[in-house]
Amino acid sequence: MTAIPNIAALLDAVLFNADGLVPAIAQQEGSGEVLMMAWMNRDALTETLSTGRVCYWSRSRGALWRKGESSGQVQVLKQLLIDCDGDTLLLIVDQAGVACHTGRRSCFYRTPGPDGLETVLPVVTEPEKLYGKAVR
Amino acid sequence: MTAIPNIAALLDAVLFNADGLVPAIAQQEGSGEVLMMAWMNRDALTETLSTGRVCYWSRSRGALWRKGESSGQVQVLKQLLIDCDGDTLLLIVDQAGVACHTGRRSCFYRTPGPDGLETVLPVVTEPEKLYGKAVR
Repeated sequence: MTAIPNIAALLDAVLFNADGLVPAIAQQEGSGEVLMMAWMNRDALTETLSTGRVCYWSRSRGALWRKGESSGQVQVLKQLLIDCDGDTLLLIVDQAGVACHTGRRSCFYRTPGPDGLETVLPVVTEPEKLYGKAVR
Repeated sequence: MTAIPNIAALLDAVLFNADGLVPAIAQQEGSGEVLMMAWMNRDALTETLSTGRVCYWSRSRGALWRKGESSGQVQVLKQLLIDCDGDTLLLIVDQAGVACHTGRRSCFYRTPGPDGLETVLPVVTEPEKLYGKAVR
């Protein structure tokens, strides 16, 4: 981030859903890879803009999710954009390593082919190396 | 789409939310621009894969939303990807004209600057030309 963003103005413009969340898409700066989509609440969004490190809200854990806190695969925020309706965010980030818990650069690695879902991205880093254990 | 996708296998893999919807991110093939995010239900997803033209579900209208049906700004599907959790889709598309109802290429055209939200994308086509009337 090149200038201090006006966090209050952004929070005013965001239409959080009934659960107090807004979807946030992470895109790699430069390459344009869409890495993942996750959710933010007001606290996660405020922390992300304040620190420059991306923080989501984990719906499964019910807690702030500082991306990379267990895997080291952090996302540095480069730019944050809000859409015309105010109900979706686009985060331009610099992703360290891999975004996906399966060890792939992006979470979007499966596509429907004639015989079912096909895997189109390789595992870059084995999950055991990221988390010290296997994950599905 | 180069091969006929297995729609049933994809539908089985998608985790629709409590409203029967899944978020779908549209990204321009080649340039990598993230154009918009909208929602699909089973019918919209089936139609999109069957026809190769992107069809969303309009939450505000409660109806199928064939992108471009009123504006002519259609999206041709090039590839569909599903994420690791099965709860988000990424559509690689060829966007005719502009994706945003404000006449900009992408719906993500505002960013928080020091003095509030700043507009970072120009209007390419006046909304009056897209819809025959002004829109906000």
